[in-house]
Amino acid sequence: MAESKPIFERVAVIGLGLIGGSIGHAAKRAGLAGHIAGYARSGETRARALEVGFIDSAHESAADAVKDADLVILCVPVGALGPVTAEIESSLKKGAILTDAGSVKTAVIRDMGPHVPDGVHFIPGHPIAGTEESGPDAGFAELFDNRWCILTPVPGTDKAATEKLTRFWEGCGANVDVMDSKHHDLVFAIVSHLPHLIAFNIVGTATDLEKVTQSEVIKYAASGFRDFTRLAASDPTMWRDVFLNNKEAVLEMLGRFSEDLASLQRAIRWGDGDMLFDLFTRTRAIRRSIVDAGQDTDVPNFGRDPTHKAPSGKK
Amino acid sequence: MAESKPIFERVAVIGLGLIGGSIGHAAKRAGLAGHIAGYARSGETRARALEVGFIDSAHESAADAVKDADLVILCVPVGALGPVTAEIESSLKKGAILTDAGSVKTAVIRDMGPHVPDGVHFIPGHPIAGTEESGPDAGFAELFDNRWCILTPVPGTDKAATEKLTRFWEGCGANVDVMDSKHHDLVFAIVSHLPHLIAFNIVGTATDLEKVTQSEVIKYAASGFRDFTRLAASDPTMWRDVFLNNKEAVLEMLGRFSEDLASLQRAIRWGDGDMLFDLFTRTRAIRRSIVDAGQDTDVPNFGRDPTHKAPSGKK
Repeated sequence: MAESKPIFERVAVIGLGLIGGSIGHAAKRAGLAGHIAGYARSGETRARALEVGFIDSAHESAADAVKDADLVILCVPVGALGPVTAEIESSLKKGAILTDAGSVKTAVIRDMGPHVPDGVHFIPGHPIAGTEESGPDAGFAELFDNRWCILTPVPGTDKAATEKLTRFWEGCGANVDVMDSKHHDLVFAIVSHLPHLIAFNIVGTATDLEKVTQSEVIKYAASGFRDFTRLAASDPTMWRDVFLNNKEAVLEMLGRFSEDLASLQRAIRWGDGDMLFDLFTRTRAIRRSIVDAGQDTDVPNFGRDPTHKAPSGKK
Repeated sequence: MAESKPIFERVAVIGLGLIGGSIGHAAKRAGLAGHIAGYARSGETRARALEVGFIDSAHESAADAVKDADLVILCVPVGALGPVTAEIESSLKKGAILTDAGSVKTAVIRDMGPHVPDGVHFIPGHPIAGTEESGPDAGFAELFDNRWCILTPVPGTDKAATEKLTRFWEGCGANVDVMDSKHHDLVFAIVSHLPHLIAFNIVGTATDLEKVTQSEVIKYAASGFRDFTRLAASDPTMWRDVFLNNKEAVLEMLGRFSEDLASLQRAIRWGDGDMLFDLFTRTRAIRRSIVDAGQDTDVPNFGRDPTHKAPSGKK
């Protein structure tokens, strides 16, 4: 993946958490950027990012960070993308590429679009990768390896700019797909937003019962519940913004989910074992397809250390 | 964990899949049994179990396998426990301990209880451990290490027998809890049965849409969906039987889940960001507690290999 010469002379990363940090690490690994300028709201985060070394310079404002940058990547929660774009609007270099890493795309085009100056190539993006961690220490160079990154350029976008951004993401290890923003939002409503919503919800339900205590739920979590807690530990601000900005698609998929759940509830109530068995057989095959597509590990239990103990040796 | 002398001279394991196999492996690791006799319905499974080596003798019938056994462990789906107990009823040795590994306990007492002869100690059990794999190659000695095993003895059960079975499970690496069967069924309805039901349901919904194709769902599964597919890949027969045999508790928990989900749906529809943010902050803390309790790994992404590729090198 090493390039003989950087794809971009100067890259600005706005937002220095899991995604911004991983982009910095991955760009450095492959030599994709001559210089990486960084900005985060918190001075502590900026200092830490410099120390970890995934940016070359830290700036006191987003506007200062994007000056002279050939590629500007906004890695802030979806709700902050409009305001941040307004802040940097007058500092963007002519000919620069402006992109983001937000999990919804139609609302992002609505919010960022009006602030993009003529001569700047705005190409919304969404890398399909992450962990439940956040902050400047959460990122790592391999996060995007063999994962997908989706670009949703608006009609009329410069082809060469899209190709250049594609090469950058490929240099970060990702495979790039181009998609219409509305279709993107529908696809990710079901593969990402609804799963997170369900996870947040069940963790909420389980820890708010009278007949079963929270300590019982925690103690016996290995029986299934713990699988949901990873998604439910994701960044609260990021996810609030996702749901507020992909409302229609999420509500549509939630409607389908609830409809199917009601029918499953009915099958349990009436003891329809065949219906349950048929569904469970079908869903088992799907995991096999995901593993075959290289989108999950084939090691049982996600490869969790089977003997994992409490961090401090507690039981 | 090695014992100077076996806890049981002869142990019979009926059902040689993930759980039966892991019990065999764990008992051999710690020298808990003088001899392990095994039975499975399929001759192929019996032969494989002998070959893998987690049983010492394979038998053509369950009745033959349990002859002279001091401990009999039924590791078959919950729906098969009653019929299997009827089959072995007249072959059980006086003074033997009879237990099971089923995920529900009240229905198991209802189904097995009437077939337990006088002088046999019936102590229902539930080891809280598993993976999404099944069959005679799925088991391993470490499966129960640092996990819980719950016993639900009925009133009047011989104390010494419960203690002896406790020592056996501890020898297999587990921590043992004793609980009332009704409470067990309520706790596991929320920490295990409902999570599996939700996982089966969302995988079903996601792969049955018109506007998003199944191949898109598989391709982009790393964005959240894949976490649910592990539970949804669990054994269909086992899980059909769990839902049919813990109906009331599952329906009660499902009712709570749906109620909470409706309120979340409302918050999204009306743009109540504070409600979303508060819930997401609360759920994030729960994962921390589970990791602190030693019930999940603290490595991001469950410790999945971040660079995992398709098994055959396909993308």
